[in-house]
Amino acid sequence: MKTCRKKDFPTAEIRRFLEPGPIVLVSSAWKGKTNIMTMGWHTMMEFTPALVGCIISEGDHSFEMIRRSGECVINIPTVDMAETVVRVGNCSGRDTDKFAVFDLTAVPGTQVKAPLIAECYANFECRLADDSLVKKYNFFIFEAVKAHAATSPRYPDTIHYRGDGVFMLSGANTSKYKRLFRPEML
Amino acid sequence: MKTCRKKDFPTAEIRRFLEPGPIVLVSSAWKGKTNIMTMGWHTMMEFTPALVGCIISEGDHSFEMIRRSGECVINIPTVDMAETVVRVGNCSGRDTDKFAVFDLTAVPGTQVKAPLIAECYANFECRLADDSLVKKYNFFIFEAVKAHAATSPRYPDTIHYRGDGVFMLSGANTSKYKRLFRPEML
Repeated sequence: MKTCRKKDFPTAEIRRFLEPGPIVLVSSAWKGKTNIMTMGWHTMMEFTPALVGCIISEGDHSFEMIRRSGECVINIPTVDMAETVVRVGNCSGRDTDKFAVFDLTAVPGTQVKAPLIAECYANFECRLADDSLVKKYNFFIFEAVKAHAATSPRYPDTIHYRGDGVFMLSGANTSKYKRLFRPEML
Repeated sequence: MKTCRKKDFPTAEIRRFLEPGPIVLVSSAWKGKTNIMTMGWHTMMEFTPALVGCIISEGDHSFEMIRRSGECVINIPTVDMAETVVRVGNCSGRDTDKFAVFDLTAVPGTQVKAPLIAECYANFECRLADDSLVKKYNFFIFEAVKAHAATSPRYPDTIHYRGDGVFMLSGANTSKYKRLFRPEML
């Protein structure tokens, strides 16, 4: 896997990559250790501040790391990383150094201690903004405080999970319906 | 647009259609009127009960209808409905009878008063399960209490929104990574 050349990306526009619903990798750091988990249950909640709601199961090793550090990075992997994405989701940080085992490159965050995954198309540095539904639903609300995205291609080829080992791959992107939008609805 | 032949679908498996992140149509009913809105910000939250978290803006006409009735139907439109999906999202139920204007077929729900949209691939009848974050984030947590899905094709061709009038279309479905899953992770 190669790393991507990236530039700063406006946090208010991260829906461009999250709203289509890709599986993401969530990286974290706590007490000198890092971890990565695969996550499919997330949604945009607000543009500014850029809020993202996520389910992180209390059974996941990342759960306590993220809850205690109050930080994570949401990384967008591309289809060439699909095998790694599945393997990351099928082992635990309890007994696996995932950056080492999966040969992923940790890049220091600019706003958070959690590391970015260099091989991913985009990285959103996040701070825990609201934990009021963590106890009841394992639902974390993060604010993306800094975003980085590859400069090419314009949109990533992403993988989307259906459960039962089945992935949907992203298809074509189209602006053909743009003419139907009222300007304020774009 | 044609309507789909459907059968009952297990609510515990609706992630098959929601987790990949399609834009959905949300139908509602209140005081003898119906409405439809286009929604892109949603996430699975639990398998059983089948919980789905959604952002519905307080500016949307559907907001009060759904909050007061405590019900809605989440419908999965397919790519052949893309133009309708955009048009539905670009007008308001305040002055538009969307079922009539867009020639959509309202089918009575079995568990809720909100109508199903017959032309959509799948319909999930939902009851409002938790409104604790509605005031702060416009975030509704619904329980899907009854699900219906087309019997063919196996997976729908869906549309996924990126903002700025750009849609990503769903691509191929693959089970090629299934061998990498531990059985309990499927």
